Amino acid sequence: MSLTTLRVRFAETDQMGVAHHSSYVLWCEVARVDWLNQLGTSYKAFELETGISLAVSGLRLDYRQGVSFDDEIRIETRLVEAKSRRIVFDYLLSHEANVVARAQTVHTPSSRLGQAVRMPQAYLELMAEHLNR
Amino acid sequence: MSLTTLRVRFAETDQMGVAHHSSYVLWCEVARVDWLNQLGTSYKAFELETGISLAVSGLRLDYRQGVSFDDEIRIETRLVEAKSRRIVFDYLLSHEANVVARAQTVHTPSSRLGQAVRMPQAYLELMAEHLNR
Amino acid sequence: MSLTTLRVRFAETDQMGVAHHSSYVLWCEVARVDWLNQLGTSYKAFELETGISLAVSGLRLDYRQGVSFDDEIRIETRLVEAKSRRIVFDYLLSHEANVVARAQTVHTPSSRLGQAVRMPQAYLELMAEHLNR
Amino acid sequence: MSLTTLRVRFAETDQMGVAHHSSYVLWCEVARVDWLNQLGTSYKAFELETGISLAVSGLRLDYRQGVSFDDEIRIETRLVEAKSRRIVFDYLLSHEANVVARAQTVHTPSSRLGQAVRMPQAYLELMAEHLNR
Repeated sequence: MSLTTLRVRFAETDQMGVAHHSSYVLWCEVARVDWLNQLGTSYKAFELETGISLAVSGLRLDYRQGVSFDDEIRIETRLVEAKSRRIVFDYLLSHEANVVARAQTVHTPSSRLGQAVRMPQAYLELMAEHLNR
Repeated sequence: MSLTTLRVRFAETDQMGVAHHSSYVLWCEVARVDWLNQLGTSYKAFELETGISLAVSGLRLDYRQGVSFDDEIRIETRLVEAKSRRIVFDYLLSHEANVVARAQTVHTPSSRLGQAVRMPQAYLELMAEHLNR
Repeated sequence: MSLTTLRVRFAETDQMGVAHHSSYVLWCEVARVDWLNQLGTSYKAFELETGISLAVSGLRLDYRQGVSFDDEIRIETRLVEAKSRRIVFDYLLSHEANVVARAQTVHTPSSRLGQAVRMPQAYLELMAEHLNR
Repeated sequence: MSLTTLRVRFAETDQMGVAHHSSYVLWCEVARVDWLNQLGTSYKAFELETGISLAVSGLRLDYRQGVSFDDEIRIETRLVEAKSRRIVFDYLLSHEANVVARAQTVHTPSSRLGQAVRMPQAYLELMAEHLNR
């Protein structure tokens, strides 16, 4: 599990006065990048080294409560599946004591040309150590 | 069913050379606004008249294939559920002959203060005529 | 001069109830891509053929009036300078009879590695025919 | 002067492999919000208390160098003009030892209805203490 905190940007609000629902998608990405730092690598280094991107093939978001400009959002990110062709992360987004959303992203390891490829074994093993924690 | 076409904006691409996964969320919103025009109203007029917003409470996206800058995206939008407290839309996104993504959004009719409210009966009936079409 | 029309997306609004100032930057990009279509090419084809991108090196925006969700924005785009290392576009953004903003972007033709390069002579000549029109 | 640091988000990159030019506009907004925290208030508290927004009426950006995903961006923000109807901020954006962009935003204090109003005297005096520092 990794923990990310960020503040709602003014540009991320909409005319309803709360953060637009698409902003949460961006926040999960920030959180996922933080998660990868735990492995002693970074998403940037991983992409450079392997030529592999973790393309998003699925996205689920359940919104519980609106959040406002400048609110501090806390994101807990967990790896819940790590197979050679399918990586899944779960996210719990909260503000103060309240859960504001839950999310899940499914990833397909992909080459620079966009072809699905296998996740390198060394990375899979590294990820397995962090599974469901 | 309504049909929306749009082109992938340059700003919507990312360093993988394809549209970022969050862009599809914005496109579904554009398509949903188009769907509402079918009712002989518009989302803007609906919000002004009723004080109600169709807040997004759920989002599902399944990505099949990347799309590139300037690609024309065709979105078929269908209303699949229209209850007083829950409105659901399905989306089929394609480029040329290929399905590029499927999406679903769940909406909770909400007041200007963000409270869940009932969808006005007149609108529910109007929507019911377009259900699953 | 080319003419682009688009509608303000819901996601482009902010909590002030009008389009966020960064949205205009995206709209100018859409308008610029439309301008290039006049040349009998497209920005996508130009990039593929030449390996050159028109990287933005300068941006000026003067906002006159806010615009709302679903407003139709009309953008007149003019090429005002076309040198081998510097391309400049002017934009006039209006809604109904009102000017809502004026903008200018300066571009440096750049290679895929981000190095400044000279604009190919054939394209410069093509552009010159459309200068200040 | 205030100092803000942030990292380039993956979603902020484009197919040229660097941050899209519109991202800098968002970063300046984040930096401006940080600047206001120096006054012992926050932009959120200021808006709630006064009903005034610092609407952006002008924007200038000069880009010097591209920045990549995950790069740490450092933003120095300075208030350079504070009149009752015109507030101006300058920004210096750098990455490691390099200046990557300079920016300026001009603001018109505006009511909730979008009318230009005078900045309250107390805030003007508070801002004057931080002018050009």
